Amino acid sequence: MKKKRISITDIANELSVTPSTVSRALNGGGKVSEKKRQEILSLAKKLGYRPNPIAKSLLENKTHTIGLIIPEFTHHFYSRMLAGIESVTSKAGYQLLICTSNEKQKQEIKSTQTLLDARVDGILATISKMNDKFQHLQEVMDSGTPLVLVDRFSEEIETPYVISDDFNGAFSAVDYLCQSGCKNILHIKGPANLSTTFNRFMGYKEALRKHEIEVKEELILESSDANLVEKIRFCLKNQQVDGAFAYSDYLAFEIYRAASDLKIPIPGSLSVIGYADEPLATYINPTLSTVNQQPFEMGATGANYLLNKINNPDIGLEIRSLETKLVIRDSCTKRAAKECQFS
Amino acid sequence: MKKKRISITDIANELSVTPSTVSRALNGGGKVSEKKRQEILSLAKKLGYRPNPIAKSLLENKTHTIGLIIPEFTHHFYSRMLAGIESVTSKAGYQLLICTSNEKQKQEIKSTQTLLDARVDGILATISKMNDKFQHLQEVMDSGTPLVLVDRFSEEIETPYVISDDFNGAFSAVDYLCQSGCKNILHIKGPANLSTTFNRFMGYKEALRKHEIEVKEELILESSDANLVEKIRFCLKNQQVDGAFAYSDYLAFEIYRAASDLKIPIPGSLSVIGYADEPLATYINPTLSTVNQQPFEMGATGANYLLNKINNPDIGLEIRSLETKLVIRDSCTKRAAKECQFS
Repeated sequence: MKKKRISITDIANELSVTPSTVSRALNGGGKVSEKKRQEILSLAKKLGYRPNPIAKSLLENKTHTIGLIIPEFTHHFYSRMLAGIESVTSKAGYQLLICTSNEKQKQEIKSTQTLLDARVDGILATISKMNDKFQHLQEVMDSGTPLVLVDRFSEEIETPYVISDDFNGAFSAVDYLCQSGCKNILHIKGPANLSTTFNRFMGYKEALRKHEIEVKEELILESSDANLVEKIRFCLKNQQVDGAFAYSDYLAFEIYRAASDLKIPIPGSLSVIGYADEPLATYINPTLSTVNQQPFEMGATGANYLLNKINNPDIGLEIRSLETKLVIRDSCTKRAAKECQFS
Repeated sequence: MKKKRISITDIANELSVTPSTVSRALNGGGKVSEKKRQEILSLAKKLGYRPNPIAKSLLENKTHTIGLIIPEFTHHFYSRMLAGIESVTSKAGYQLLICTSNEKQKQEIKSTQTLLDARVDGILATISKMNDKFQHLQEVMDSGTPLVLVDRFSEEIETPYVISDDFNGAFSAVDYLCQSGCKNILHIKGPANLSTTFNRFMGYKEALRKHEIEVKEELILESSDANLVEKIRFCLKNQQVDGAFAYSDYLAFEIYRAASDLKIPIPGSLSVIGYADEPLATYINPTLSTVNQQPFEMGATGANYLLNKINNPDIGLEIRSLETKLVIRDSCTKRAAKECQFS
């Protein structure tokens, strides 16, 4: 059994005074004789009295905690985003309460309830992938609890958000491949129905268009394809592929494996660029070029938006699409780069 | 401003009945006419009344939430441990509230307060590395909130815990190197003052002792050494090193780099074993042999201990040291393995 928390009434009973006298002595309001005040303070200390945090927070209407709903932590991206959030919240004296959704909508809904029940001052959320209902997020906003979306957003929810510029991230990668002389550029798409998948694919097509390279259906693969590995191998073998841009670093690593099976040297005959700058990009051989989405900055910006909204509920809608950074490592040839910049 | 939560009193005022009538109607106790009950229920629904979760949980003395204090999520180990915890808690209908300590004692203390204030039913904690004070953990236990330690424990706190068998984990790795014919085995130690560092070092020494191989000071390096990379290189060059066992996979990767600089082939001339089975172990070339600590099982076992303790506070002290698994990949020669098993 949990031990009973010492209450103001316990102290009052012990000293035969009224609870309101104890409250005034502890909180410093109204008339209490100095002698009585000292008696009350010393007994409160002796009994280990702590102000009821919920009663206290109800008075202040603040708990100085912020809720975070995040899909999972196996991707380094989210632990970096968390670090960015913490860099802001800890400085501002806020404690984070984190719930994971595991990309499941049901768990996301439960998490919002748990965080509202814990009376957090605001919520930062990365909505789960397959989210198609937003009632629970609307309820958060209706309860007057500020909400900021990070990494993913929905047009159905009018609240501040910070996302990454996927279109330009992909465009810069494929543009680089074209500039370094690649003509047949493989693309592995991400999960269906995700805006990131769509935007990166659009960036890929736009870069090809800029360089007047035809978009070939046979060079575009789906990551969800059960035979993906075989299809990559088939493609590398039969399509004179000289460049590849993958939706993620993990998918880029599949291209490495296929190239290794076929003894196609990277970057000698094939330049590869991934996405997200996960740690594996620096561990694999050759090190992988990739698009860094600045997850730390994303988390920090989102946390700042939330604090702004907590401190000034009438603030306008702050939104931002963060620039990405193209990180070129050993998986790309730089051979014709200069030449092509002038072409 | 947060919107005011609809209370029983609001409903009572609206219908000109007493709050206790509303409470009886909503909670189903005592006398209320059926007509009045229907009136109250339909107004409660219309106004969006939700029972005050804190009042409700004070009655039940349960919130069905569990607190988790964890250092960080950049190591895959902790996200796997989290998955193991969630596999148990979600099945049992508990919601997790996670706080990160970033290995800082101050943040760990704050986290325990935040979780107690959120009235979690129990706490799972991986205490931070440099922890030397345990008053806050004692306070958790004194409050009657069950506490289970995972991954790290302290002899000063008498509470259930689940840790990993570091001694045998290290022993099995170095024993394997010896069995495959290695005679000069480099060891890179972990951070000073950690029991894991000590236990893995003891396992290393015990395996050498078993194979009657002398422990050489010049083969033992400290990971904290500012000149670690140079020292590894010097050691590989001058000490006829044919095997290496590192405190972590990341340190093993430093050995890969040094070997690559010196054109020493792995596993041809040097067998390497890391520790923790982080994802990089499968990404680097050659794939890295390592010791898997079963973080998923660690999390699941810890969560089970906590649920047992929540449901039966008088249960005896459950503790467990989980067996590790030696995972042999391409970084080790298997050449003389059979021969040596009989030597």
